[in-house]
Amino acid sequence: MNTLDVIASQPLNTESEHPLYRQLQERIVQLIATGFLSEGTALPTEQSLCESFGLSRATVRKCFEGLVKSGRVIRKRGKGTFVSKGNDRPGLDTALNFSAEMAGFGKTPSSHVVSFQQVEAPNWVSELLELQESNAVWQIERVRLADETPLLLTTAYIPVELCPELSEEELEDSLYSAIARHSGTLPERADEVYEATTLNAVQAKQLRVPAGSPALRILRHSIDSQGRIFELSVIIARADRYKLAVTTTSRGARLRKNIT
Amino acid sequence: MNTLDVIASQPLNTESEHPLYRQLQERIVQLIATGFLSEGTALPTEQSLCESFGLSRATVRKCFEGLVKSGRVIRKRGKGTFVSKGNDRPGLDTALNFSAEMAGFGKTPSSHVVSFQQVEAPNWVSELLELQESNAVWQIERVRLADETPLLLTTAYIPVELCPELSEEELEDSLYSAIARHSGTLPERADEVYEATTLNAVQAKQLRVPAGSPALRILRHSIDSQGRIFELSVIIARADRYKLAVTTTSRGARLRKNIT
Repeated sequence: MNTLDVIASQPLNTESEHPLYRQLQERIVQLIATGFLSEGTALPTEQSLCESFGLSRATVRKCFEGLVKSGRVIRKRGKGTFVSKGNDRPGLDTALNFSAEMAGFGKTPSSHVVSFQQVEAPNWVSELLELQESNAVWQIERVRLADETPLLLTTAYIPVELCPELSEEELEDSLYSAIARHSGTLPERADEVYEATTLNAVQAKQLRVPAGSPALRILRHSIDSQGRIFELSVIIARADRYKLAVTTTSRGARLRKNIT
Repeated sequence: MNTLDVIASQPLNTESEHPLYRQLQERIVQLIATGFLSEGTALPTEQSLCESFGLSRATVRKCFEGLVKSGRVIRKRGKGTFVSKGNDRPGLDTALNFSAEMAGFGKTPSSHVVSFQQVEAPNWVSELLELQESNAVWQIERVRLADETPLLLTTAYIPVELCPELSEEELEDSLYSAIARHSGTLPERADEVYEATTLNAVQAKQLRVPAGSPALRILRHSIDSQGRIFELSVIIARADRYKLAVTTTSRGARLRKNIT
């Protein structure tokens, strides 16, 4: 699917209290977050979005104005609208996009696929993904490196029926970008649980630290606009390089990662 | 110091862009957060606050209205204004108040003081607290239990000159409440860094788990309204009972603890 196809793969909800321009905005933000729309990529024209969705020009313009104001895109006169450099983007953008996250820390990201295969979903995966007809999932194990030192060990589970054509080559890019390209499914929310763990011998070797070393274990649920979990990831992060900084005031909490 | 004395121990900033009613509100919210103003405690009367701060009745009324609206206090006709039950309070309230936090999980909190002593501040403590004249700090080690099972091991450092009269008996209550009572100093912000670690033999024994077990290590800076760090805590939390749940959307992140 091309950009316009992916954006328009699901209709907007005309019965929602959430205005249409906001719904369109969020879909584009999600596509930027996944890395499907990467820095410098052109957005579809306002005209083409009006036609695809049957929206008024005013609605699409309002959507674009918000994206420009938030700094996510820039307009180039006579050329179009382009995704901007994303260092300071809040929220989902860096949570779901390893490359964007590493760029924000001035580090060079790389990735090594340990295994890429279809498997029978383990019970806990099957239950969380609410698999019904087929129990087949893609299981994707990767080591993610920053400046060539291992940082994360990730295992992702995705229903095969969501994107049967997924290939190992596509994992060079963001996984969420590949899911969006195949199925139009976009992450609206990520629920994560952080806990402390210790590394077994296999994990320790992959992360190049002694067995028994401490690590953060993050269980992530990626949730689409219908509230369905469409991907699960178990992320093991080296304790010496990956910390979480939280600032709390009486108005709430703010969160960022500390990566060294 | 009584409640009115603590609230009024520092003047409001009349040159701030932050309106006076909001400044007064935040001070009261901080006192609730520390546990100094606990559930059911009466707030000072509007009249007494007007007199202490030289504020107009309208300003104090606006402050109280905001507190009622946020659910932090309730008015009882003819009786006064009282701190409400705090299960759902956001932000600082539970971050800094172990008892309030445990109550929110339906657990009975308790605490065991391992050591309470004046020591020469370690270098990192001295630097962060910006100690100048005296290098003496209170070092307070406690085990915090939920339903009689150890959950946290906390070590707090506070400049002795901030509250020279601090006593071990006061630690039955919240430490921040005691600091407020002695010095009028209130936490406006807490900066925390979460990382994974493993327990040494002493820590493991105190938390009743095997040595080498994983744990979350939280380094907390408590910061007052002048931006000064007035307390440092190192918190070691059992990995099997203490997790952090983070929900991320394109609008930002929300955070809560998972305690089992």
